[in-house]
Amino acid sequence: MISAKMKPLVENNSVIRQMFEEGKRLAAIYGSENVYDFSLGNPNVPAPETVKESILEILEEEESTFVHGYMSNAGYEDVRGTIADSLNTRFGTSFGANNILMTVGAASGLNVILKTILDPGDEVITFAPYFVEYGNYVRNYDGNLVVIPPNFIDFQPDLAELAKKITARTKAVLINTPNNPTGVVYSEETLKQMAGVLRQKGQELHQNIMLISDEPYRELAYDGVKVPYVTRYYENTVVCYSYSKSLSLPGERIGYLVIPDELKDSEAVFAAATIANRVLGSVNAPSLMQRVIKRCIEKNAAVNLAAYDRNRNLLYEGLKACGFFCVRPQGAFYLFMKSPIADEKEFCSQAEKYRLLLVPGSSFACPGYVRIAYCVSYEQIERSMAAFQSLAKEYGLMGG
Amino acid sequence: MISAKMKPLVENNSVIRQMFEEGKRLAAIYGSENVYDFSLGNPNVPAPETVKESILEILEEEESTFVHGYMSNAGYEDVRGTIADSLNTRFGTSFGANNILMTVGAASGLNVILKTILDPGDEVITFAPYFVEYGNYVRNYDGNLVVIPPNFIDFQPDLAELAKKITARTKAVLINTPNNPTGVVYSEETLKQMAGVLRQKGQELHQNIMLISDEPYRELAYDGVKVPYVTRYYENTVVCYSYSKSLSLPGERIGYLVIPDELKDSEAVFAAATIANRVLGSVNAPSLMQRVIKRCIEKNAAVNLAAYDRNRNLLYEGLKACGFFCVRPQGAFYLFMKSPIADEKEFCSQAEKYRLLLVPGSSFACPGYVRIAYCVSYEQIERSMAAFQSLAKEYGLMGG
Repeated sequence: MISAKMKPLVENNSVIRQMFEEGKRLAAIYGSENVYDFSLGNPNVPAPETVKESILEILEEEESTFVHGYMSNAGYEDVRGTIADSLNTRFGTSFGANNILMTVGAASGLNVILKTILDPGDEVITFAPYFVEYGNYVRNYDGNLVVIPPNFIDFQPDLAELAKKITARTKAVLINTPNNPTGVVYSEETLKQMAGVLRQKGQELHQNIMLISDEPYRELAYDGVKVPYVTRYYENTVVCYSYSKSLSLPGERIGYLVIPDELKDSEAVFAAATIANRVLGSVNAPSLMQRVIKRCIEKNAAVNLAAYDRNRNLLYEGLKACGFFCVRPQGAFYLFMKSPIADEKEFCSQAEKYRLLLVPGSSFACPGYVRIAYCVSYEQIERSMAAFQSLAKEYGLMGG
Repeated sequence: MISAKMKPLVENNSVIRQMFEEGKRLAAIYGSENVYDFSLGNPNVPAPETVKESILEILEEEESTFVHGYMSNAGYEDVRGTIADSLNTRFGTSFGANNILMTVGAASGLNVILKTILDPGDEVITFAPYFVEYGNYVRNYDGNLVVIPPNFIDFQPDLAELAKKITARTKAVLINTPNNPTGVVYSEETLKQMAGVLRQKGQELHQNIMLISDEPYRELAYDGVKVPYVTRYYENTVVCYSYSKSLSLPGERIGYLVIPDELKDSEAVFAAATIANRVLGSVNAPSLMQRVIKRCIEKNAAVNLAAYDRNRNLLYEGLKACGFFCVRPQGAFYLFMKSPIADEKEFCSQAEKYRLLLVPGSSFACPGYVRIAYCVSYEQIERSMAAFQSLAKEYGLMGG
């Protein structure tokens, strides 16, 4: 019964999602306090109290048929206006409601924009390590994901390789900053150079290359690191945003696309993306949550970033003390750690014996590393340290 | 910038959605009380009070990270179990949580199941008149929608034509009962005969034909009409359900797929559909609303069906008195009316002069008729009657 295109997806089902299920299974056996599940980017920091307050206010103040009803497929205009204003204030942009398209999270936003632009055989370039679903999203529209190998020095994108990989079939370049899985933030310098490459190659090839910036972790940056706003550096940029992490609402599926006026064929792209949002079956982003977002922006709601920062420091220092080599994360809630052996899948299997659930880097096209999601309780990280130490000893990184 | 596949969608954007926008424009000019917008299936009956109560209870009793967090891509297991139990009690089925896949409404559920099964060139058969988006959903996966012409006698599906149209490429038959736009409910006899045709042709062609039953209007049936549960008549059935209408939550995008054990390759189809739900970008159905559904089922929440019934009677009797020929609706909240002239688009244009917004039947592959959505206020129907009378006079249906 299953289509040829879906079969490989069933056979290679998401390693991360499988670990999520495995974690639940182990927790049932050993007790959840004895399983150190670092596999999934499921925020442990609760949504800010403002989310709850906003829901209560909305249910009191707004009509049921309005709050839960259909609106334009692009979303409520007032919500989109509030988002645009907030972006303008924070990043010096000049968006209006007509540049914002509400989506069922960033995953759906990516699908919407890829459906909007991709013809079969078109290429989308991304930089390893990258979120494993990108390949599936691009293949949904018969595109090919072209992967640029990791730059192991600082995990900034390899722009020399980018210039080489752009062809007449390149429709878009897809970036993710702050990055999952490395926690690296692309610098202003990186974005300026990337824009230069895209402009130059675009001119050479007489085409407009779209830069798609997937930014669910934008608000999660530490040590005062700034996350530059990508539309300011390159005109053909579309931003995919999600409130999954910034307001701890991953299950609610709420986010938006930014389609700036500066984008080539901007109005037509916005119209087509709105239709793609409808015909892919989302129809519109969930209505109550759209209204919640408006109030949360007006009240400057934010998750408790300090909690992630505390986790980050505890984990990073703890693993360093074990002798592991780690990329120090500047943003998001992932730590990317070098496996002490080349075969990091084998390393992950060994870790599982200590009930440490880590995701192999090969799931992100970056073998030899593992991803540790630290959006877990501080106590889980504390408790897990003994297990990490035992693991380090097994590989001779620490004295026995 | 726009893909070749999206271009025709932009050029032929949804007539219904355009009318929705047109209605808003006219309302701004003439005042909403002077525009009789019957174009969109956006429920005017508010969600039952239980929805609000349930939200308040959930926010008090359940943890934020649970309520708004990720769960398995198929949805919360307890929610799925509650839905299965409720179906079993009402329809004598024997589903478990593993037969229920929570989706972002029925539109997304249809996309998920079509992505799961369709190879390029596969055929999906449906019966006119049908919901215009079916063609877009099928084409999303490079399938072809094969349309069986309307049966103008009683708008039950034409099963003799079905038998003729099934080929080696037929992957599925897609039905919608209670039907949008006719309001007709497929009878038990129809479903038995349809099952017979599908089994016989399936045997002849050595293939399993899936019957996809799109049922957002299941709970909206009048005059005591029963809506037979389709899985009881044909084993290879998948049901797409939505709470958009039964709980007046269309903006919230919450529904489910039923994938019964009796379906060929049931477990594999469920696994693949769960992955399709993820990679199409939904990831999971909105989490808070999933939890709301559980409580609403436990408390037997339902919208005020009597309000729609009252609208139905007022509209049907009023239009009949004008001399219009109408299909008497048994379910849903649409009335299908014969245009007094063959070119029903021209008739709709005339109607618009009286600020009556009606949808041409050609949008449902059924020219010569118009759809009137009566999910509007009783007062709007009352006020609109003078306009309908003027329109009837214009066509000589009533004395001047």
